[in-house]
Amino acid sequence: MESRNRYGGDFTNYRSFKIALCQMNVTENKKENNQKAYDMITQSASNGADIVVLPEMFNCPYDKNGFSYYAEEDTLLKGNVINESSSLLMLQKAAMANGVYVIGGTVPERDCDRLYNTCFCFDRKGSTIGKYRKINLFDVDISEKITFKESDTLYAGDEIVVIDTEFCKIGIAICFDIRFPDIFKEMRSSGADVFIIPGSFNMITGPAHWELLLRARAVDNQVFVASCSSARNENSSYVSYANSLVINPWGNIIANAGYDEKIIYITIDLQEAYKLREQIPLT
Amino acid sequence: MESRNRYGGDFTNYRSFKIALCQMNVTENKKENNQKAYDMITQSASNGADIVVLPEMFNCPYDKNGFSYYAEEDTLLKGNVINESSSLLMLQKAAMANGVYVIGGTVPERDCDRLYNTCFCFDRKGSTIGKYRKINLFDVDISEKITFKESDTLYAGDEIVVIDTEFCKIGIAICFDIRFPDIFKEMRSSGADVFIIPGSFNMITGPAHWELLLRARAVDNQVFVASCSSARNENSSYVSYANSLVINPWGNIIANAGYDEKIIYITIDLQEAYKLREQIPLT
Repeated sequence: MESRNRYGGDFTNYRSFKIALCQMNVTENKKENNQKAYDMITQSASNGADIVVLPEMFNCPYDKNGFSYYAEEDTLLKGNVINESSSLLMLQKAAMANGVYVIGGTVPERDCDRLYNTCFCFDRKGSTIGKYRKINLFDVDISEKITFKESDTLYAGDEIVVIDTEFCKIGIAICFDIRFPDIFKEMRSSGADVFIIPGSFNMITGPAHWELLLRARAVDNQVFVASCSSARNENSSYVSYANSLVINPWGNIIANAGYDEKIIYITIDLQEAYKLREQIPLT
Repeated sequence: MESRNRYGGDFTNYRSFKIALCQMNVTENKKENNQKAYDMITQSASNGADIVVLPEMFNCPYDKNGFSYYAEEDTLLKGNVINESSSLLMLQKAAMANGVYVIGGTVPERDCDRLYNTCFCFDRKGSTIGKYRKINLFDVDISEKITFKESDTLYAGDEIVVIDTEFCKIGIAICFDIRFPDIFKEMRSSGADVFIIPGSFNMITGPAHWELLLRARAVDNQVFVASCSSARNENSSYVSYANSLVINPWGNIIANAGYDEKIIYITIDLQEAYKLREQIPLT
């Protein structure tokens, strides 16, 4: 039997799949953040999600002075460490207990004397299937509006990451990365049909560029884009624009979380992408 | 005297400049199209334009079966050919007579047995300062909506073009090219501060992608983008979406021609781009 179709995909086990974006409200309390994330992953799974996504810096405030305090080493995942407060162990446990893929937003990752803004990805058994360190750090200085310099405390990653799932390949990027079309082209060239992007834009660049650039990355590459932000907390030193979005390959917004804490669900049918690539061939 | 500022630009003669986009109504009559273009260039110049832009295929309908009939060879510009109906000689004459830069939209260009979709650029003296052949041909088949295959009759160019003017460097692209972020990155790397893009999207992809992709190219590269389309003619076999746009480096639309025949003017101050690149460094 010929199981590969004219799109080059293996459709033997083809089916659509459901993504959940957990737009969680992040506080200064790491333990609370971990518990909230665990609960939202569990709720997502019970509502039929196959892949659950958390926001950028889901375990800590988006404040460069705190990253070191909240940071974790990925060696946690390799040993038999008992550490109830670990975000990474929580993610692993949540994936395994619920049998879902978890794209674990980001946490500050410590590697020797360096910190990274890192997304850990887990399969349904809780195994790590990818780890992406943010390549393009957020260094912005718009006087009297928004100033932030990630590179004061974080190092930049240097590797594109495309993970394998039972549904398709998924490219991972983080927040400020969306200003750099070339890394998305590279992920698409590596076979990604979906981009998942934990990120928290702010109240200046958010209204101006968040939707525009996410839609552009979808249309440029004819893929689905799912971005997961933290909820908006007006009392935070960094106020997140929120608006977690899912965009189809044609560029339409097919789900928008608004600004409150919320889980949004979307069913992805990749046929939509395959069909569009036949109608408007870009490669 | 130090005339180079911290942005690396030579500001000795720095001043803002005015671009005119001639959203002309194109007919089947080449002579009429040439006369219309000449008149619009003259009018633009008399209103103070420094750089005048025409739409894609300004001398002929956007119909692949007609391209050969309307095509011209660029050797016309090199000889002393008397040819009253030549679009290229008209462009040269219009630039020279009015002392303006002319970005001559596009015409079908014949080179031996090949045809290209080509943009010819002239300085204030009528000298050719650049010639860009569309790299990404428009081959689209969205059944029952829009089907067009440029590659049936046209060849693709293979060279990025960035022209020099007294104001700045300008990158030239054509229509379907806007779906390919990499060529814009390359033009920006070559020093372009403005992208000028003759193009005519259609009534299907136009509402969906024209504004989105032009804004994205501006924001991705922190440059001004000026796109010039033909006016909308509902009786044409190919109905142009029109909506010639100018977008600033922040991504805002600062001029929109709508759909009727019209000239729109915009004054460009490059300081806006230089400032933004300091606030949000992307390179």
